[in-house]
Amino acid sequence: MNENFIYVIPALGIIGLLVMLAKFRWVMRQESGDEKMNELSSYVARGALAFLKAEWKILSYFVVIAAILLCYSGTLVENSSPVIAISFIVGAFASAFAGFIGMTVATRANVRTTQAARTSLAKALAVSFTGGSVMGIGVAGLAVLGLGSLFIVFYQVYVVSTGGDVNGLEMEKALEVLAGFSLGAESIALFARVGGGIYTKAADVGADLVGKVEAGIPEDDVRNPATIADNVGDNVGDVAGMGADLFGSYVATILATMVLGREVSSPDRFGGIGPVILPMFIAGLGLIFSIVSMAFVRIRKETDSVQKALNLGNWGSIILTAVASYFAVSYILPDVTLEIRGFEFTRGKVFYSIVLGLVVGAVMSLVTEYYTSMGRRPVLSIVKKSATGHATNIIGGISVGMESTAVPMLVLAAGIYGSYELAGLYGVSIAAAGMMATTAMQLAIDAFGPIADNAGGIAEMNQLPAEVRGRTDLLDAVGNTTAATGKGFAIASAALTSLALFAAFCGVSGIEHIDIYKADVLAGLFVGAMIPFLFSSLAIAAVGRAAMDMVNEVRRQFREIPGIMEYKAKPEYERCVAISTKASIREMMAPGAIALLTPTLTGFLFGPEVLGGMLAGITASGVLLGIFQNNAGGAWDNAKKSFEKGVEINGQVFYKKSEPHKASVTGDTVGDPFKDTSGPSMNILIKLTSIVSLIIAPHISLKRGGAHALLEPFIGKVGNEVVAFYQAPPLEAHTPSFEIKLQRLKE
Amino acid sequence: MNENFIYVIPALGIIGLLVMLAKFRWVMRQESGDEKMNELSSYVARGALAFLKAEWKILSYFVVIAAILLCYSGTLVENSSPVIAISFIVGAFASAFAGFIGMTVATRANVRTTQAARTSLAKALAVSFTGGSVMGIGVAGLAVLGLGSLFIVFYQVYVVSTGGDVNGLEMEKALEVLAGFSLGAESIALFARVGGGIYTKAADVGADLVGKVEAGIPEDDVRNPATIADNVGDNVGDVAGMGADLFGSYVATILATMVLGREVSSPDRFGGIGPVILPMFIAGLGLIFSIVSMAFVRIRKETDSVQKALNLGNWGSIILTAVASYFAVSYILPDVTLEIRGFEFTRGKVFYSIVLGLVVGAVMSLVTEYYTSMGRRPVLSIVKKSATGHATNIIGGISVGMESTAVPMLVLAAGIYGSYELAGLYGVSIAAAGMMATTAMQLAIDAFGPIADNAGGIAEMNQLPAEVRGRTDLLDAVGNTTAATGKGFAIASAALTSLALFAAFCGVSGIEHIDIYKADVLAGLFVGAMIPFLFSSLAIAAVGRAAMDMVNEVRRQFREIPGIMEYKAKPEYERCVAISTKASIREMMAPGAIALLTPTLTGFLFGPEVLGGMLAGITASGVLLGIFQNNAGGAWDNAKKSFEKGVEINGQVFYKKSEPHKASVTGDTVGDPFKDTSGPSMNILIKLTSIVSLIIAPHISLKRGGAHALLEPFIGKVGNEVVAFYQAPPLEAHTPSFEIKLQRLKE
Repeated sequence: MNENFIYVIPALGIIGLLVMLAKFRWVMRQESGDEKMNELSSYVARGALAFLKAEWKILSYFVVIAAILLCYSGTLVENSSPVIAISFIVGAFASAFAGFIGMTVATRANVRTTQAARTSLAKALAVSFTGGSVMGIGVAGLAVLGLGSLFIVFYQVYVVSTGGDVNGLEMEKALEVLAGFSLGAESIALFARVGGGIYTKAADVGADLVGKVEAGIPEDDVRNPATIADNVGDNVGDVAGMGADLFGSYVATILATMVLGREVSSPDRFGGIGPVILPMFIAGLGLIFSIVSMAFVRIRKETDSVQKALNLGNWGSIILTAVASYFAVSYILPDVTLEIRGFEFTRGKVFYSIVLGLVVGAVMSLVTEYYTSMGRRPVLSIVKKSATGHATNIIGGISVGMESTAVPMLVLAAGIYGSYELAGLYGVSIAAAGMMATTAMQLAIDAFGPIADNAGGIAEMNQLPAEVRGRTDLLDAVGNTTAATGKGFAIASAALTSLALFAAFCGVSGIEHIDIYKADVLAGLFVGAMIPFLFSSLAIAAVGRAAMDMVNEVRRQFREIPGIMEYKAKPEYERCVAISTKASIREMMAPGAIALLTPTLTGFLFGPEVLGGMLAGITASGVLLGIFQNNAGGAWDNAKKSFEKGVEINGQVFYKKSEPHKASVTGDTVGDPFKDTSGPSMNILIKLTSIVSLIIAPHISLKRGGAHALLEPFIGKVGNEVVAFYQAPPLEAHTPSFEIKLQRLKE
Repeated sequence: MNENFIYVIPALGIIGLLVMLAKFRWVMRQESGDEKMNELSSYVARGALAFLKAEWKILSYFVVIAAILLCYSGTLVENSSPVIAISFIVGAFASAFAGFIGMTVATRANVRTTQAARTSLAKALAVSFTGGSVMGIGVAGLAVLGLGSLFIVFYQVYVVSTGGDVNGLEMEKALEVLAGFSLGAESIALFARVGGGIYTKAADVGADLVGKVEAGIPEDDVRNPATIADNVGDNVGDVAGMGADLFGSYVATILATMVLGREVSSPDRFGGIGPVILPMFIAGLGLIFSIVSMAFVRIRKETDSVQKALNLGNWGSIILTAVASYFAVSYILPDVTLEIRGFEFTRGKVFYSIVLGLVVGAVMSLVTEYYTSMGRRPVLSIVKKSATGHATNIIGGISVGMESTAVPMLVLAAGIYGSYELAGLYGVSIAAAGMMATTAMQLAIDAFGPIADNAGGIAEMNQLPAEVRGRTDLLDAVGNTTAATGKGFAIASAALTSLALFAAFCGVSGIEHIDIYKADVLAGLFVGAMIPFLFSSLAIAAVGRAAMDMVNEVRRQFREIPGIMEYKAKPEYERCVAISTKASIREMMAPGAIALLTPTLTGFLFGPEVLGGMLAGITASGVLLGIFQNNAGGAWDNAKKSFEKGVEINGQVFYKKSEPHKASVTGDTVGDPFKDTSGPSMNILIKLTSIVSLIIAPHISLKRGGAHALLEPFIGKVGNEVVAFYQAPPLEAHTPSFEIKLQRLKE
């Protein structure tokens, strides 16, 4: 491998962003329909921007405070640097920018999709999928460009210019500083996913409770003051939230693999920094082949299957990336066998790990599809139970959701086990990177859903011809399936990302074992497993409170603004948008604080091994609760939708408005915060706690004074013995010579 | 300590059983009311017996097969014996007998309580609580007698007669054989708790759906064919199920502590076998002081508080046992300091561990009470959310249930951490034993609830004067609170028991670490954490199917037996009892198989360390799901009950039959299988998987040929290396000399 090969990586990111720009301009050039269509669409676009601005304002405080803390803490230990604050800010900015791109294109593509649906289904698919592609390519492109260029800078500064060892402390420092990028990205994801999840459901429930139930007006009625907030919510939650979530996973997975790659890197063995740059290059390849495969997503006739077109694109990107990975691995890694902790480490095994990751991701999506699709056993069982009432519908959904955790957990366990057997912890991590490689395509398919959904809403509000609505409905139905599989992919990626980060954390913190035979580590595991339950409880309760604020505002507008119901006065849409925005930001503080503080406090108070136990607990229980809530919610949703065409239960056919249908609506309402708020937030929780742990790892490292690094001015640790100083040691004490000095002090 | 002191332990058990007999005879001497009251009561008694008989029939097959397997496997390794099959049978028999006693007295005490309520509240409390006491003392007495006498026999046979070391293989063998008693007890608990849980809810839901909803007749109406099955279910689930559950916890905790006590036992240090017999003696003391404190549970006037009387008894037994434990520890353990794995081990620290266990149990009960009591914030929040519909009621309950896991998990973690710091793994285990010491009292209070509940039902069915029903209602209300706190105690005890068994398993299997940094162990943890979700899903779905069977049968009887509704024909109660019995036994097969096979397969295929990771996963996630489901169910129940007196929501007062009340009924129905079937089954799941692991530990022990002991005829393991034989080694190969032979074979 040529040394200058590392410059190829940011170049791939730039190519991606240029393609994105071209696709964005293409979308904007499409016809956007008549004035009335544009008016409503522009309300949504402005509302979405209002949310982003409010979010950014709070975020800017958070980012500044966090950056100062990171800057300070970066000075404390040798294998970090204050520069970490800069990569944190860049990461946060890149993530926010990716969200902005996605929201901008989604709120433009929706009305253009509606207009295109007047012509043909093929055209409507082209517009909506291209809109989704902009989001997907933007996220992946920014990640590859950001990580790639920052790495080059830090590699030059910390390793090349110091003549440092690529396998040593210098490289560890370069990667630790780069980890700030990932923390920045994931922090934004916390706001976008958790805040966005609360926003979307508060607006939805608020709009429905007063509009549909009290005022008796249909969904998406322009007279409902909360209707714009509701539509904004779809974009905020499903587009920006999902985008930030996957951006975070993508970056964190690559980063964790790089950190683990350092261990196998060496100038004189296994191709220099090959293992470090491999995950970035695979991501770059995945981006390019996702773009190539997007060309497969097209139909020619009205009767062609949209789902098949999307599947073709998806599998195309997976297979092309897998094939390309083979050559990439062959080029970057040398054909030698390395012995690491009893493993035979070869490039062939690395390649198989990547393939294993791709397979795990695909299986997880398939299982999700099975448990949440109409017409399959799980959803049918809920439909049938709706006939005996609200309670049996709920029990059925909970049972299905719990059952649906079994296969994914076995697949995940097999993936961990298999990739570890192949290539150790690097194998686990590169498997995750392989799975995430086609993120651009996954996200394009994901973001296509809400665009089609919104397009259908616009068609409905403007009472366009049945033909047009037929086309948007068809796209919307496909979008519902992709939404479910997208969630399966997101939780699988979060799980593997957390494991990769977990492995990286163990490496950096210098722990060799996480022994749950020790009572304190086991206690950490127990408390960790509880955190996702507490987090879910807070998220669900938050939706309830935020929805109540919305209900009160909508009631006030109906009461105080005369003429709304007669279309004579326009409701104050902005106030509802503002209420939802404010409530969501207020309500995400407590869960956010839990995600950030739990690992920090545990790490500093009890040390890295207890923190490791806690991370395992959070990850296991978080993945389970995430799958349970996503799938139960998805299954309830489609059980309700089954009634639209009529379902036969015990020889009787039931339609909408029947008693069983009412029971299914209850299930769907319970499932809403499950699948759109607390379920997806599990992804963020497990990743954020892991990334925070990785960031604090150098401070609590066993290699450098134990769990009391911040107390080091007064206490030092040699081996297992705690030594007190009567006088604070100078800062330079925080170097390897520290222990020697301590030793002298002791003597 | 005098060597003959060990004979005191079974003597305490015998004293307990004699007191139990006296109390039983006292209950039977009470007036049982008129003929009509007795007729219904006798139906229930016969139905309960029918269930027990059917259960025993299946059980007898299971016990025979399991005993044969145990007998065979006992021949395979040196530190076990075929005799384990005998202690298994004795354990199963003792547990079944305890359940029989409890059911017998409960189905006699109920009608006598109704009759006593004609006289005074004091008298009614005396009868119902004495009924519960018989159950409590019976369970504890049989456990102390059984364990104590079997231990004496095995100690004589394996240790004393062979001149073996109390700290060595001989004692390990004696205790391993004794572990069969615990496995027998817990296997019966599986049938009683899981099967009983399915039974009680199937009958309940079946009776309600057809009786209340379709036929429009009130609860407990004699015309409903399922009404007897419903009443039997209360006894099967709440009396026999709870009794078997706590019997299992009690025995397992004592046993695990004994196994761990061996490590600190030695003829020449720390008082010989003192640490081994201490937990049994503490249990014996707890039994005696529970009996003493039962005298405190009495009231004199009608206006005296029943709850206060129960609390006085409860705290009396806890405090007396704590004080007595101080003297017991001082007598049995010598005043020396022992160094174990870096711990200073003293008798003072052992005593504090016992106290810590008592405190953890008390706090867990208090937290449960807070989350499930009427008038407190959690239940009030659900009541309030009922005003906005079925879905918000459900969301509220789920949120409360999830939140309620936080404090118990922190308390549990603190308990593990604290007791470990005090006295290592023996400390964790003896803390659990301390907590379980007052089981007789806990169970007396628990079993009092369903007796009072049944008494109220009999009063209702026979339309006794309002005065009588007022008294039984009062007792019933107190019983609802004790039912909730009892569940808190049961899950806490199951958690600590599992941890104690987990520690014992580690000791016997010879693993020094359970390192979740290893991918296979982590994969085990993930799969383990999933098991409780799958188990819950199966249990909940089973209730649905079993209830459907009942619904069909009740419908058939109404259709085919003319005159039921006009009181002219008697419904075929027995058929409903038979249906419920059959369905519950059929439906518990799958969850039961999971509990038994998962640890067995994992242990033999992947070895003890992966199994250890899996146990940690099962325990953490099982405890969480147990607390979540119990508390959500309890809170929903009391939210519904709050409407009986009327509740004010947003300035409006709502009563029964209002819309918010209907929403609260939905929550209660969802909560029923949560709190009565799948929630309590978590106790069994986590304990049974741990005890099975302990039983198979010698076979998969790292000390004796690795994870492939059963394959040893063909494969052997030396260190990490697998050695294949061309010829099966003889049975004597399974001795310490085995490794020497292997070594030779290699050379």
